Amino acid sequence: MSEPQFDRLALIGIGLIGSSIARVVRDRNLAKEIIISTRSEATLARAEELKLGDRYCLDAADAVEGADLVILCIPVGANEAVAEAISASLKTGAILTDVGSTKGSVIQQIQPHVPDGVHFIPGHPIAGTEYSGPDAGFSTLFDNRWCILTPVPGVDAVATEKLQSFWQACGSNVDIMDADRHDLVLAIVSHLPHLIAYNIVGTADDLETVTSSEVIKYSASGFRDFTRLAASDPTMWRDVCLNNKDAILEMLARFSEDLSALQRAIRWGDGDTLFDLFTHTRGVRRSIIEAGQETDAPNFGRETGEDQLPAKN
Amino acid sequence: MSEPQFDRLALIGIGLIGSSIARVVRDRNLAKEIIISTRSEATLARAEELKLGDRYCLDAADAVEGADLVILCIPVGANEAVAEAISASLKTGAILTDVGSTKGSVIQQIQPHVPDGVHFIPGHPIAGTEYSGPDAGFSTLFDNRWCILTPVPGVDAVATEKLQSFWQACGSNVDIMDADRHDLVLAIVSHLPHLIAYNIVGTADDLETVTSSEVIKYSASGFRDFTRLAASDPTMWRDVCLNNKDAILEMLARFSEDLSALQRAIRWGDGDTLFDLFTHTRGVRRSIIEAGQETDAPNFGRETGEDQLPAKN
Repeated sequence: MSEPQFDRLALIGIGLIGSSIARVVRDRNLAKEIIISTRSEATLARAEELKLGDRYCLDAADAVEGADLVILCIPVGANEAVAEAISASLKTGAILTDVGSTKGSVIQQIQPHVPDGVHFIPGHPIAGTEYSGPDAGFSTLFDNRWCILTPVPGVDAVATEKLQSFWQACGSNVDIMDADRHDLVLAIVSHLPHLIAYNIVGTADDLETVTSSEVIKYSASGFRDFTRLAASDPTMWRDVCLNNKDAILEMLARFSEDLSALQRAIRWGDGDTLFDLFTHTRGVRRSIIEAGQETDAPNFGRETGEDQLPAKN
Repeated sequence: MSEPQFDRLALIGIGLIGSSIARVVRDRNLAKEIIISTRSEATLARAEELKLGDRYCLDAADAVEGADLVILCIPVGANEAVAEAISASLKTGAILTDVGSTKGSVIQQIQPHVPDGVHFIPGHPIAGTEYSGPDAGFSTLFDNRWCILTPVPGVDAVATEKLQSFWQACGSNVDIMDADRHDLVLAIVSHLPHLIAYNIVGTADDLETVTSSEVIKYSASGFRDFTRLAASDPTMWRDVCLNNKDAILEMLARFSEDLSALQRAIRWGDGDTLFDLFTHTRGVRRSIIEAGQETDAPNFGRETGEDQLPAKN
């Protein structure tokens, strides 16, 4: 095992992402010491039970003292207040980063609170599950996933390289791009899919003509796929919507325009248009599987029906 | 093992569903003899290589001769021509059923060709994967899934019971409802989800501002979930759209209305509306898991990144 890359890592927030970082850092010996902070006493106690760190603080400012790597693992809407709170306690030379799903807003909100001599490099590991909290994390979450860094102009290149090498040691491939590009790309690959999933689950649940129990019983015919994304953390996703508004509205407009065309094809019985679209989209999945970002097992490799509870009636 | 329920089963079409029926019937000894027909020589040859049946016919009319159970396992758009072709060869007393995803249209298209003395009982096993063809089937596909039968008024009750018991022996739970209700329910749980999935994959692929390779690399952030449904059989789904038009357009209108409200909440920064919706939808997934229609494993139980190809770069 190689030398630890950092002496003291402070994790602010210990949910799915924070606790996965804690686990992989411990497993692969990437930091000598892990300090964990969250404002919820119950969550902090749980993190301690799970032995995720070496020290535990309710106060984020205490946690970052002396840390040479500080990672904010909190909903993006909470970044500004936390940045303000920890600002005076950050060690000169420390790297400050985050894991938020929006990057333009994070820069706007954190940058003003970064003291001279602290290297602020926003980041976004593109990995997750629909579960939340310190129990949901696991050390292989980042393996073969991508992590995007969006350093602001003028940031120390050595610090960026150090953070890049940290994420690589966590298992990720690292890309560097500017924050605007990140926010545009993520709007289509992540934010729009989540919104659409939340929306269709809401539509189905609101129908007065079809009962909830019918939706549930027959969900294996397609609907259930959407419920996974729609079970994601509500606070995180509210904050994403509020903090990447322009790009999300742009992608929503595109999506709705295309959906209107599809609707028109259905109304007028235009089978060729439907067939062309439905054929074309198959290739996209094949490319994702070939890129190692998806399983080729049928139904995502879900357990088959016979392994599932409850027993047949 | 119990006595076979039927002497001779004729399967017209041997794709994912047809070949899964062939396999479960063989495994559980549900018919003495399996006759397979498909109009594609290559597919028929493959079915024979896979030893899915006892006899193989290119001509559907030949296949149904003497069969006491005939199951049409073809895209719903092909039903009318096949019903016409086999009509004169159906045995008196035979049960004729299908597996199509729309039921009103199937009744309209098949019923006129059903001779007196043949029991036509439309059916729809709610099970599948994104793969197609005779290699894609497996004998446990129907286990703990639902199969809906939509018998027309006046059909023989004993025949309906016999078909119900056949599907139960295949592993399914069986519900009986009228065709209109089926078509409405399936429009929301299956047809709309597929359309939305096809649409978003199309939107992402058409963007001139984000490249395909970006969409593919970062797809684990949400997008890849949709690509599974959008990889489903294009012919089948074109036919579904053309044959359940009214119910699909109704559900599309609901979905778009709700999406506009969501869009408005984003535009105006209405975090409470977003948070309420995103919280509410979590419960729906929990109910589906509790009903045994979904796995509770994170990410559908997909293999983790480290098991996936290609190796990290």
